[in-house]
Amino acid sequence: MDHAQLEHYRQVIEAILSEYASLPYSYADIQPEVVFDRIRDRYLWMDVGWDGDRRVHGCLLHIDIIDGKIWIQRDGTEDL
Amino acid sequence: MDHAQLEHYRQVIEAILSEYASLPYSYADIQPEVVFDRIRDRYLWMDVGWDGDRRVHGCLLHIDIIDGKIWIQRDGTEDL
Repeated sequence: MDHAQLEHYRQVIEAILSEYASLPYSYADIQPEVVFDRIRDRYLWMDVGWDGDRRVHGCLLHIDIIDGKIWIQRDGTEDL
Repeated sequence: MDHAQLEHYRQVIEAILSEYASLPYSYADIQPEVVFDRIRDRYLWMDVGWDGDRRVHGCLLHIDIIDGKIWIQRDGTEDL
């Protein structure tokens, strides 16, 4: 895979995750966190916070680029 | 917080997570993944794979550096 294509994948993945993670929650004290590791090509969207006195910590989306291919390791957006 | 101290924190966190994630599993087809985002100072150890036909995807450790302080957002190592 050429570098321009890989760079394009990275930018698209980061843009999508950033857009998702920018949506505000209508309830609870939850901060979305994006975690972008371009060295290992791993891209996550995590939710961290509290719903009342209940701890919230979860991975909503986890995308890797492995050997030039996009792997959706986890997609929790259907649970939202 | 001075930059040398922050850099020291980053190196220690990455070393600990890398060491944990290098331990082999005695069962199941699970790959540990470290995800290090030095821009946002977010550091994760994820487990990804299969236990037979059951999907495995979880966050074992999630550490952030926020305003010069280390936040343990999630510690699942006690469940191991």
